[in-house]
This record gives sequence, structure tokens and C-alpha cells, in this order.
Amino acid sequence: MKVTVNITRRPEIADPQGTTVRRALVDLGHDAVREVRIDRTIHLEVEGHDSDTVHTQVSRMCEQLLSNPVLEDFEVVVHG
Amino acid sequence: MKVTVNITRRPEIADPQGTTVRRALVDLGHDAVREVRIDRTIHLEVEGHDSDTVHTQVSRMCEQLLSNPVLEDFEVVVHG
Repeated sequence: MKVTVNITRRPEIADPQGTTVRRALVDLGHDAVREVRIDRTIHLEVEGHDSDTVHTQVSRMCEQLLSNPVLEDFEVVVHG
Repeated sequence: MKVTVNITRRPEIADPQGTTVRRALVDLGHDAVREVRIDRTIHLEVEGHDSDTVHTQVSRMCEQLLSNPVLEDFEVVVHG
């Protein structure tokens, strides 16, 4: 099954990578850029027949490895 | 205006980061994982009133800095 995981930094947590990219864009002349935040989208292909089981498995992967639970939230979408 | 940029590795280009994450997941016991690919989603807040102008500006940012044109494709979505 194809699964997409969206990993986003919590809104209250600063994004230093985004801030650095914003500064670089302004240095290149793109001074209309007010804010930049950078998230990850992870695409997985997982063997399985039951969407709920795969959803539970991938949520566990997020907690264990794919996301940083202190700084980030995750959303798992199973496409079937 | 809020803008989302999806940066994806071209399908024919290997994703070493994804391969490393897949191995780590298998090591953790998630051996149903067949493939992992990791993309970036960049959220920007850009000053401007005209969607087409902002789209052109952000596409230029992608070519200059946000994406690697040799390995990656990008898609710009202006939310207005």
C-alpha cells in the first residue's frame, strides 16, 4: 500500500532552517518573502492488505523514527 | 500570500536518504516497508497581490535556491 506521511514542525516551534532559507532568499533580492517553513513529506510503500493495520504500523514508525515527537507533528494518510 | 512548494526527487533518481531510513525501519522490525522516498514541502508567506506574479517569483526562487534542478522537480501552489 502507498502511504504518505506529512511531518510538520509545531506552529509554536521556530524553524531555524526556514529562517536561514528566508535570509538567503532576501539576499538574492526576494525581499517580499516574509516567512519560510520547511516540512518533510515521506512516501512509503508498505506490504499489507488492511488500511487500519498499515495506518497503525506507520504511526508507530513515526513515533519511533520518522518524526521528532518533541518538535513535530505527523499525519499518516494510507492511499490503499 | 501563502505559497506551498512541493519539491520531489525525480522518479528515476535514487533517494539515498530514503534508502537509509528504509533500512533503519527494517532494523526496527518494520520489514513490511518496501520503499521510502523523502520529499520537502516548503511553506512561504510572500507579500504581493497578484497570484501570477507571486507564482513567477516563487518559481524563480525554486530555480535559484529552493530546489536542485539536476535531481528534483518542483510544483508551486499559490493559495492567495
